[in-house]
Amino acid sequence: MTVLSLRSDAAGTAALPEQMAEIGRRARRAARLMALASAQAKDVALRRIADRIRADKAAILEANERDVALAQQAGQSAALIDRLRLDPKRLEGIAEAVETVGALADPVGRQLAAIERPNGLLIERISVPLGVIGVIFESRPNVTADAGALCLKAGNAAILRAGSDSFGSAQAIAQAMSRGLEEAGLPADAIQIVPTRDRAAVGLMLAGLDGCVDVIVPRGGRGLVERVQAEAKVPVFAHLDGINHVYIDRAADLAMARTVLLNSKMRRVSVCGAAETLLVDRACAETHLRPLVEALLESGCAVRGDAAVRAADPRVTAATEADWGTEYLDAVISAKVVDGLDAAIAHIETYSSGHTDAIITEDAQAAQRFLSEVDSAIVAHNASTQFADGGEFGFGAEIGIATGRMHARGPVGVEQLTTFKYRVHGTGQTRP
Amino acid sequence: MTVLSLRSDAAGTAALPEQMAEIGRRARRAARLMALASAQAKDVALRRIADRIRADKAAILEANERDVALAQQAGQSAALIDRLRLDPKRLEGIAEAVETVGALADPVGRQLAAIERPNGLLIERISVPLGVIGVIFESRPNVTADAGALCLKAGNAAILRAGSDSFGSAQAIAQAMSRGLEEAGLPADAIQIVPTRDRAAVGLMLAGLDGCVDVIVPRGGRGLVERVQAEAKVPVFAHLDGINHVYIDRAADLAMARTVLLNSKMRRVSVCGAAETLLVDRACAETHLRPLVEALLESGCAVRGDAAVRAADPRVTAATEADWGTEYLDAVISAKVVDGLDAAIAHIETYSSGHTDAIITEDAQAAQRFLSEVDSAIVAHNASTQFADGGEFGFGAEIGIATGRMHARGPVGVEQLTTFKYRVHGTGQTRP
Repeated sequence: MTVLSLRSDAAGTAALPEQMAEIGRRARRAARLMALASAQAKDVALRRIADRIRADKAAILEANERDVALAQQAGQSAALIDRLRLDPKRLEGIAEAVETVGALADPVGRQLAAIERPNGLLIERISVPLGVIGVIFESRPNVTADAGALCLKAGNAAILRAGSDSFGSAQAIAQAMSRGLEEAGLPADAIQIVPTRDRAAVGLMLAGLDGCVDVIVPRGGRGLVERVQAEAKVPVFAHLDGINHVYIDRAADLAMARTVLLNSKMRRVSVCGAAETLLVDRACAETHLRPLVEALLESGCAVRGDAAVRAADPRVTAATEADWGTEYLDAVISAKVVDGLDAAIAHIETYSSGHTDAIITEDAQAAQRFLSEVDSAIVAHNASTQFADGGEFGFGAEIGIATGRMHARGPVGVEQLTTFKYRVHGTGQTRP
Repeated sequence: MTVLSLRSDAAGTAALPEQMAEIGRRARRAARLMALASAQAKDVALRRIADRIRADKAAILEANERDVALAQQAGQSAALIDRLRLDPKRLEGIAEAVETVGALADPVGRQLAAIERPNGLLIERISVPLGVIGVIFESRPNVTADAGALCLKAGNAAILRAGSDSFGSAQAIAQAMSRGLEEAGLPADAIQIVPTRDRAAVGLMLAGLDGCVDVIVPRGGRGLVERVQAEAKVPVFAHLDGINHVYIDRAADLAMARTVLLNSKMRRVSVCGAAETLLVDRACAETHLRPLVEALLESGCAVRGDAAVRAADPRVTAATEADWGTEYLDAVISAKVVDGLDAAIAHIETYSSGHTDAIITEDAQAAQRFLSEVDSAIVAHNASTQFADGGEFGFGAEIGIATGRMHARGPVGVEQLTTFKYRVHGTGQTRP
């Protein structure tokens, strides 16, 4: 038995590169067809997919039960098992999310620019799908449907790779999606899922499957994102950290500062838009520091501060250098008193992960400088950092938040899953 | 002497990674300052740079003479030496090109989108500089000024790497540019040039200099672009080939077809927008094929055709499979008769390099299908493929043409050398 199973594994591994290459070629072919699909056809497909997910409820939940049982046997954490577990309500939520994506405006075929040339040429810049998007995720099976639906809406093909824990659930959902596509007359291969737990598949996707993957989107923890960013030979839409700052300027309204700070930190501590560092202008520390620190502590947030912050409240513990570069994703905040706007911007330049940083001030000029000079994907004035979310930006849904500078930055919605081409309309023009 | 020289080389090589890392850090610092520079400051800098290039004429031409002499000693081709050689007229052209870039509209700070949310948040998407752009070029010293000026206009810092042949000329021009920046109160490091001929510097740039290079733009021949695309760990704006097609549809006007085809192929045969393959619809081959082939032959263009094309004129030689995938950059064209629009699109899908493809037809529906279905950066209807140029698109100037799908596609002008960020304007909003 052991020998047989080893043999079968070895054969599986040897065949993997070819198997993955074939997935890539199928995705490329599907992407070409998807690029020509009408808005209506894509929306019908998304409705069919939602229906399919509902119709396949028993099979999906059964696959999920097996995943949960395996995760429990493997001694996975309660948090992971909670992320993994589906129930009828969660599955209905997944189906509804697919319908929501269907209802968004079609991001393909928009005229992004129109240039009329003196020689009579009309040159249009028109949005077109990106192509093939590789999505690598971990234990949340809902990512299968969420990411697949966004890719499809933007006319792309998706290659999904689920983590070991969510493997069976993700296969079941992806199958429902492929069937929904077929029912709508679109290529089933527009949503493919890697049919093996073999981790080598990830490496092959990151290498781009012979030019058949245009971009990779990792959805998961720091370890996954780090590996993807280090190894990928194709572009990546991702963020590694959300080390987000709230700067309380000398001209901040204290009540607003307290409300926005508490929301930025404590609304949900585990999201990437949560604030991790509080900076307080020395010029208002006398009046603002203690009430803000007390509000944090009373809301259940531990505060790690520099000497000035510790002096404000004995419950504040000492921050070390490492704290300024730490994303706690927990009820902990680092806090520092800084010498005004320039020092705040300098601190953020050094420690920010370029995700979301906010200033609280009634001084329009200070706000303007902060918004201009802080080089993060999202900069906010008098608003919670937790608005860093595609839904809150009106994008309907997002596939993630990117801190890179190329192509997509900030929340990545369906628009950012497109690129463009130029259409030149002539009447026989030649170039002199 | 030999031992000493070897020692000095070894020391130089050992020091190169640190030297390049320092160039990267300086570029990043300069980029942060450039991002805040006003449109006016950048335009003043570009005028000062043009003045400096004129003032340093003697030094630049002297350095160029030494480059030319070395290239001649090394037995370089006449074509390379022509690309390399500067004279007072060419140098004045370089200075004027810098002024032209200065006169373009500022691509930074444009409001690309404005989203008003029900909760009163105003979210703006604002264009900001990309950051640090690495430009790797070969024998044309004018690229130093052209590329540097475009990067500067878009608020970026540039790290320039000249080929061995243009090394001295490029150093002299880059020095003039740094002095011009300083005279305008901007950081001299916004234009840096790699001060060594050591080819290992290219590898270090392609690895991204510890995150200090945001994008690489190769400017040169196929060998350079291939190496850059294969090795770069950062995004690349480039095209490898311009295998461009002109498809003569059954509804093409013959006179227009002849004029546009000849211009697409023969206006300049060595540019990336030149046509390399002629496709003729079988439905109009009877009337259109022979006149088109004759026109090409009479203009001095060799024609390599399939059996149908060879039957039209005995001077046509046989095309092999390799011809359909060849960018001649010469007075040669491959030609084929295809079974209508679908076959033309299928041929282009197989062989096009995704640069520029054109259809000639009076049939609006056929044109619409071609423009939608051909997946190239530029698709043209009744217009020469040689319009594939940033200047012809009204961009003022371009740093190159990209066939990748991410961020920039088609002519890369100053707009494509920017990215964006989101500015969130609130009045104390918190997220429920």
